[in-house]
Amino acid sequence: MLYFLSDYTEGCHPKVMAALAETNLESQPGYGEDRWCRAAADALRALCGETDVYFLTGGTQANLVVISALLRRHEAVIAAETGHIAVHEAGAVEFTGHKVITLPSRGGKLDAGELEAYLQGFYADATHAHMPCPGMVYLSQPTELGTLYTKAELRGLYETCRRWELPLFLDGARLGYGLKSPSCDMTLRDVAALTDVFTLGGTKVGALCGEAVCFRPGVTPRGFLTMTKQQGAMLAKGRLLGVQFDALLRDGLYWEISRRAVGLALALKAAFVEKGYPLYADSPTNQQFVILTAAQKERLEKEAAFSVWERLPDGRFAVRFVTSWATQPEDVDALKALL
Amino acid sequence: MLYFLSDYTEGCHPKVMAALAETNLESQPGYGEDRWCRAAADALRALCGETDVYFLTGGTQANLVVISALLRRHEAVIAAETGHIAVHEAGAVEFTGHKVITLPSRGGKLDAGELEAYLQGFYADATHAHMPCPGMVYLSQPTELGTLYTKAELRGLYETCRRWELPLFLDGARLGYGLKSPSCDMTLRDVAALTDVFTLGGTKVGALCGEAVCFRPGVTPRGFLTMTKQQGAMLAKGRLLGVQFDALLRDGLYWEISRRAVGLALALKAAFVEKGYPLYADSPTNQQFVILTAAQKERLEKEAAFSVWERLPDGRFAVRFVTSWATQPEDVDALKALL
Amino acid sequence: MLYFLSDYTEGCHPKVMAALAETNLESQPGYGEDRWCRAAADALRALCGETDVYFLTGGTQANLVVISALLRRHEAVIAAETGHIAVHEAGAVEFTGHKVITLPSRGGKLDAGELEAYLQGFYADATHAHMPCPGMVYLSQPTELGTLYTKAELRGLYETCRRWELPLFLDGARLGYGLKSPSCDMTLRDVAALTDVFTLGGTKVGALCGEAVCFRPGVTPRGFLTMTKQQGAMLAKGRLLGVQFDALLRDGLYWEISRRAVGLALALKAAFVEKGYPLYADSPTNQQFVILTAAQKERLEKEAAFSVWERLPDGRFAVRFVTSWATQPEDVDALKALL
Amino acid sequence: MLYFLSDYTEGCHPKVMAALAETNLESQPGYGEDRWCRAAADALRALCGETDVYFLTGGTQANLVVISALLRRHEAVIAAETGHIAVHEAGAVEFTGHKVITLPSRGGKLDAGELEAYLQGFYADATHAHMPCPGMVYLSQPTELGTLYTKAELRGLYETCRRWELPLFLDGARLGYGLKSPSCDMTLRDVAALTDVFTLGGTKVGALCGEAVCFRPGVTPRGFLTMTKQQGAMLAKGRLLGVQFDALLRDGLYWEISRRAVGLALALKAAFVEKGYPLYADSPTNQQFVILTAAQKERLEKEAAFSVWERLPDGRFAVRFVTSWATQPEDVDALKALL
Repeated sequence: MLYFLSDYTEGCHPKVMAALAETNLESQPGYGEDRWCRAAADALRALCGETDVYFLTGGTQANLVVISALLRRHEAVIAAETGHIAVHEAGAVEFTGHKVITLPSRGGKLDAGELEAYLQGFYADATHAHMPCPGMVYLSQPTELGTLYTKAELRGLYETCRRWELPLFLDGARLGYGLKSPSCDMTLRDVAALTDVFTLGGTKVGALCGEAVCFRPGVTPRGFLTMTKQQGAMLAKGRLLGVQFDALLRDGLYWEISRRAVGLALALKAAFVEKGYPLYADSPTNQQFVILTAAQKERLEKEAAFSVWERLPDGRFAVRFVTSWATQPEDVDALKALL
Repeated sequence: MLYFLSDYTEGCHPKVMAALAETNLESQPGYGEDRWCRAAADALRALCGETDVYFLTGGTQANLVVISALLRRHEAVIAAETGHIAVHEAGAVEFTGHKVITLPSRGGKLDAGELEAYLQGFYADATHAHMPCPGMVYLSQPTELGTLYTKAELRGLYETCRRWELPLFLDGARLGYGLKSPSCDMTLRDVAALTDVFTLGGTKVGALCGEAVCFRPGVTPRGFLTMTKQQGAMLAKGRLLGVQFDALLRDGLYWEISRRAVGLALALKAAFVEKGYPLYADSPTNQQFVILTAAQKERLEKEAAFSVWERLPDGRFAVRFVTSWATQPEDVDALKALL
Repeated sequence: MLYFLSDYTEGCHPKVMAALAETNLESQPGYGEDRWCRAAADALRALCGETDVYFLTGGTQANLVVISALLRRHEAVIAAETGHIAVHEAGAVEFTGHKVITLPSRGGKLDAGELEAYLQGFYADATHAHMPCPGMVYLSQPTELGTLYTKAELRGLYETCRRWELPLFLDGARLGYGLKSPSCDMTLRDVAALTDVFTLGGTKVGALCGEAVCFRPGVTPRGFLTMTKQQGAMLAKGRLLGVQFDALLRDGLYWEISRRAVGLALALKAAFVEKGYPLYADSPTNQQFVILTAAQKERLEKEAAFSVWERLPDGRFAVRFVTSWATQPEDVDALKALL
Repeated sequence: MLYFLSDYTEGCHPKVMAALAETNLESQPGYGEDRWCRAAADALRALCGETDVYFLTGGTQANLVVISALLRRHEAVIAAETGHIAVHEAGAVEFTGHKVITLPSRGGKLDAGELEAYLQGFYADATHAHMPCPGMVYLSQPTELGTLYTKAELRGLYETCRRWELPLFLDGARLGYGLKSPSCDMTLRDVAALTDVFTLGGTKVGALCGEAVCFRPGVTPRGFLTMTKQQGAMLAKGRLLGVQFDALLRDGLYWEISRRAVGLALALKAAFVEKGYPLYADSPTNQQFVILTAAQKERLEKEAAFSVWERLPDGRFAVRFVTSWATQPEDVDALKALL
């Protein structure tokens, strides 16, 4: 079976596994106070400048902990209607007491003009004290559809947020696959400069688990460590996250994994396009969305694992093929041969 | 440095690491639907009879997810005043909306008679509808002081809970060290029979992370998986937990780790007693609590890592020494030589 | 000034005030255990059949207490996107931990077919365990736009809810004005028969404050009284609500108030239509929505108090005129003369 | 029947009822923006200096809204173990996500020295980041046992709070009965000067419902009005609270009610003491706690309504007699004749 189901269907990159094995017997303090967490945080700072780094286990967890830490009691987070927090996180943000206000999705993205218009409209409404108060903005890069914000788009959103004094949070669960796309015009340093807090995802980019949360200094909520404990998000053996991120960031492994997987995904995309398969979304990253007829889907399913994204009204299927560090070029070739 | 700081200062047992490495490249579905999670759940059922098994990442996480899943909106959980959820979980239960009602600690333990008296008193109070309603009972085995419930004590609590229709939850973050203590008169099967839900901890017994949550069939809350997602407690690569628990439970590694560590701890305890050090708690498990003078503490700290539990009113210190799979007999001998 | 701002700008109907004064010195137990609450609940049961009645203070309070009492932890409430809980309750439902899932508003109403389609789509989605689970349905009668569900429409929604085992909650903050509209084809008994829980609003129909919450027997959550206390919704002097509802329901005052106010509102509507003012919504109840040019608005504002509902893209204004027990026919005539 | 059950068993003081009747037909904006709320707030400021005033409906509601507005996500409120929020509010504070940390009750009161020791101990504990962070201090004046803080005691607590940067919240549900006790050495102005936020209770001092919340300027949380809406605590007809507080504060009615009721309570207390009944608590305010044998209790219950506070281990009963504006001197005399 050719496996394109997702980027979390194998374990970790072999170099990450090697790092875990090598450091396994070292005695280190718990709760993220070990030397590997410090080293990984330093490596992150070397890449993007001064930042407060915390390591959490998963993407939904990072989102709910960060959002509920930054919002005040009566505030809501703004997201695109396709945003992960608005769809596939089981109401995690609401469980912490906050509404997710959704704006239209433009290919998975928020539009700075629409955000500005929403905020002006909100405060122009005489009844706004009876409505949840916008308290921060959430976006994902790449988006849930694999698409990318340009640097200008991100700057536009960031400047809007500055004007309205709203923290901007970038969910980078697949940030490597975004930054290493040939279509991307921004760096990690840009991300750090144009957001108030962002995550750099490990789980989908070669780690067993782990997301780095990076706060702009001054934005970090007082008591954040206690909040992570309070939400069950603090690992006793925090080293598990530190060792992995250290291995990923040392010698650029994180970027090498990302670049390679994006290359394989784009080769696959080119093959789909060449064979006349329509695209569901035009993604320059490691997730590819194409439209299959029922017959095509049935035929491909016999040889390849991929996921159904949506059943279209006309009976066809939007499906997703994902590459990762574990994807082999031969598998891509084999899939191409089936098209 | 002789390391007795805690049972989560090293990575995982080498056999667990080997299992992670061996299975690393296997493609498996995410979110705990992999074959290793199924195998580990089967292994648990072989040990304790029919049970619904879920794997979560950490102890505080397991506690807050289980408790908030079982309680109704206006209900509270009853615990000993020394219970982990009442002290060292940063208000995690309260953050999910529920009070922790504390009863006196009898060497870390709840007493069935006191529980019964509390419940009778609660319902005899004409104003009880104005108070948080007792909704479940929490205990830890071994307790936070390393002490153990006897089977008769656990049965007494379970029967009290049955009479009042309260689920009984046993936090087994260190359950192996309890069951393999020579002082223990119960088996895992007894635990399953005398509770409604219990955890079997991995983090402190040889895994990198992971707690198995075992619900008595019929007790499992509908929608529990969604709740774990909602609380950021569902790993994308759920295999990380499945592979580790499979390795721990296959061939009895979990019990071997536990028995060995308890043996070393008791040897250490015997040495302390022999040398005339007073015990702070009389623990038959892998955590040993002794009382040191300031001078003794200062001297030992130069050679050994341990933790200060409490500063006593007379200026002495209650300190804790902990053993684990990573503790070497030579280290115990070296420490004994220092006493 | 002609006052059409809302139906909560005066105190209470004089007969309600008289009842408060007459009963003022009676000694009665607190917390809703007084004889007036019992009498009012009996009066309600006489009107709509067996039901469990509780009296709360306000509309948002009733909504958040009822919804959070009926939902399980991971469940969400479905509402029209114009529903009060989705717009003007400051995120009250989310603060209790639950998402509001919005469906399109059809003149303020939910459509049974769209509800069915949503539910089928939800469960057909393989990832639905990662999404908030639909747990109940909320609608308002009359809606926020003054419109009314027909009995057939309500039955359609109720049957859909039955099929999916979802409680149906009808927010009747202005229920009197709905049931006494000449366009309404249902009775209070129908409301009770075709919902699982509904409110009968007092605040906007002649009381100083107060909403009656009526649960279908068997639906009432165990511990509901404690939940009201827990959410700060239990009045010490519960008699304040009982006396008022008793006065409103005795001798049909509630219905007389409603019928009269709807009559005045429809007279006003007829005048607007006759003078060629376009309607923003075609309401058969006590709230009337018309569209004014900026000049018309400016002119009318000098003589009458009304509220701006929305600024339309073409620069005109949707505005709302509301009648109540306190509206005088002369005021309606005076306003008509201004059109 | 002689009625001493509580201070919320009758309606409101006749002058308050008269004010409601007189203002009933006035058209005023909703949600507390009416002229009566403004007038009542001005009256309060005239009494205690600059303060931000909000009117809420009930005591538990005021407590939960204020506490959850002032605490940050990971913070807890400190209270005496007898504090209303720790006992008789159905877990309302916990439902908003926060733990209530309890300190010993000294006759219902917190002790500044014990508070200081607790705070020093908390921060001296190396694991304090794993525990709920103390975020504010709650006390009630008079306490739940009718006792009073002296001005020196309150100042001691306030200064401790200042040192640790913790807001001090004084629950004044019965504040009038405290300030007008002959044993009280403080004024409302002192209360305002020695707290960060306090309530002045209306429900138990002559109103149908209503508590005034007074924040020290600068302490008021941004968005507080939205929070009250979010918690179902904003009345549509906010005038109901404004009119009542205006009537209570105009011409000193509030203080007259308080002084008179305390006088009657102390006369009753003197009679109990004279007849040799032991006191359960030595209260100088409108709640009197005495100890009755079972026979005494049974005999008195035939003629008088009072509440059982606690069944003592020796079989006797601690009971409570409460006076209010509605208590008649003849009733006190009649009760005295029964002793």
